[in-house]
Formats: sequence, C-alpha cells, structure tokens
Amino acid sequence: MNRPRVSVFVGLSLDGFIAGPGGDLSWMEPYSTDSPEETGYGHLMDSIDTLIMGRNTYEKVLSFGAWPYPAKRVVVLTHRPLDSRHGEMAYAGLLENLLDRLKRQGSRHVYLDGGESVRQGLAGHLVDEMTLSWVPVILGRGIPLFDAALCPSMWKVKEVRALPSGLVQTVYSCPHAEAAER
Amino acid sequence: MNRPRVSVFVGLSLDGFIAGPGGDLSWMEPYSTDSPEETGYGHLMDSIDTLIMGRNTYEKVLSFGAWPYPAKRVVVLTHRPLDSRHGEMAYAGLLENLLDRLKRQGSRHVYLDGGESVRQGLAGHLVDEMTLSWVPVILGRGIPLFDAALCPSMWKVKEVRALPSGLVQTVYSCPHAEAAER
Repeated sequence: MNRPRVSVFVGLSLDGFIAGPGGDLSWMEPYSTDSPEETGYGHLMDSIDTLIMGRNTYEKVLSFGAWPYPAKRVVVLTHRPLDSRHGEMAYAGLLENLLDRLKRQGSRHVYLDGGESVRQGLAGHLVDEMTLSWVPVILGRGIPLFDAALCPSMWKVKEVRALPSGLVQTVYSCPHAEAAER
Repeated sequence: MNRPRVSVFVGLSLDGFIAGPGGDLSWMEPYSTDSPEETGYGHLMDSIDTLIMGRNTYEKVLSFGAWPYPAKRVVVLTHRPLDSRHGEMAYAGLLENLLDRLKRQGSRHVYLDGGESVRQGLAGHLVDEMTLSWVPVILGRGIPLFDAALCPSMWKVKEVRALPSGLVQTVYSCPHAEAAER
C-alpha cells in the first residue's frame, strides 16, 4: 500500500449521528463510562502515529481544554489559517495526497476522525478499518456520519463487543485492505 | 399496558437504509444465510399473533410469491383499497387506536414492520422492543429506517449477536416498556 493504514473510530446514534445539532455531544455522556482499554481506544492510540481530522472536530477537541494528542502528529483538514499551538499542521489538499505524503514521512497508521473527513476517506476507498460504537439512542437530528455521496461498499466484521455502558461496538475491515495486508 | 406488546425486527445497512432505491433488497441477499433460529426471526414469529405493516412492505411481501403469514392476523396501514387474499385487513387510522382495538380483540404481541410504520410507532412511543440487524454494507442511498421527525429516545441493550453471515444483531428494549412489564 502506498499509504499508511487508515482507521476510523467513532461513536454514533442508532440513526447514524456522530453529534447532535450544533455539535452537541451531551447525549453521549451517559455512555462514556467505559475505559479506553474496554473501548479499544487505548489500543488504537498506542498503534497510530498520526491523526487526521476536520476543522470542526479540531475546534471541538480544543474546546475540551488539555490537548489530548501530545505525542502524535496531527493534521487538520482546513482551508482556513490555523493557529498551531501543539505542532498541529493545516492541510487543504486531497486526503489521498496527504496520505501519500505521510507515508513518505514514515507514517504507518493514521486515525481519521470527524464526519466530513471520514466521508472523504470512505468516498476515496481510503479507510481500512472502521470501529463503530453504536450508542443506544435515537437522536432524530444532528450531524450524520454517512451521506448520499457514498458508493455502496461491503465490509467484513472483525469484532463485536457489548460494552458495560450500553455501547455496541463493531469493528469492520475493508475486504480490499485485508487482501493488501496478506 | 392498554395495548399489545410491539416488536420491530428489521435489517439495515450501516448507513441506516432498510432497502435500496426503489425498494431494492438484493444487497441483503448475501447476508440472508442465517437460519430463522439463528436470527431469532423464528422465535419472534412463534411469539406474535399479529403483524402490522405499511403498504409498501405489504406489496413487497406479495411480490415474494407464497404468503408467509398464513396463521397470523395481518393489518396493512393504507388509505387505498386492499384486495385481501389471505384475510389481511386494511386500516387507515392512527396506529395507537389500532393497537387499542387489537388489544380488545385479544392480541398480545404485534410485529410492526416497514419503515413508515416503524417510524410511526417510534414517534408515538409505541415500540417495546427493536431488533436491529446491521448488514455490513454502506449503501449510500435508499429507504431510511429513521427520520428527522423522531424525538430523542434512549434504549436498553438486551442482546448482541454476531451472526455467521456477517450480520450484527442487537436487541434494544424501551426502558419504559421494561418498567411496565415488571
């Protein structure tokens, strides 16, 4: 593969929203009681060298206070200027080209985060693994993970976990990615 | 409860579609290899006395050939005349009133099927249990299960199963329904 491995790790409502209207995440809070070991988030963070996220996700992360990715390369997909405070870089080009560049810089595993970025990755067949954590909530409206611009794609179930909080977590891998690994 | 118990049992794509454009179900076929015992469909059919479905679902069922519900009461939610061939009845009123009438007729457990009917049930807080079978496919477009008219609701995970076909099945119960059962 001429690019690093790309993983998606995202929580979503039963009706497919990763956030409520205006980016609201409060509905997820009752289900945030699992440890990073239980959710596999810890394992993912140990395994990746780079995060790629959209501007909205980046701003959300900044609003949390402490920067959660001190030891990682972080690239923000944005066309607007970025006031880099933790070494994060702005990138305004195609995700595919970014991944190519990261590969040449030695990146082996990328965590792709945020609705628009994930959709860009899916549309470009650039996602190798997708961990979906279904929150047992019907939200009605909000920011969707998927959209109508995506072509049909088939995935392979790698793992299914019912977490103590009530999250149902499924790890899907792209069959093509699996073939590439062999 | 002044109505029969109401269960939903539906397969959907990762992006929340119960059928492709024009009602296409061919994308589900590779994942239809589990037995009714494995999926729990057999158990559900043994347990219910009545099916309620929308007109589109009804027409789809008719197109399959043999009538699959010979021993069940079937009510079709429709405003158009129905050429009843297997004892099925048309109903044009509110789902809530239909459930009340069914209860008085001795119904104890109803299977509510079809996107519009399920949404009507969810909007009216009339669904007690929801079995979602996630097909490992991103479809892009089609007929959605959920819509923006739904109010937020929280559910309880009752069971999670990874089926041999690749389906991931989660049974959700409505916390209020559980309280009513106790």
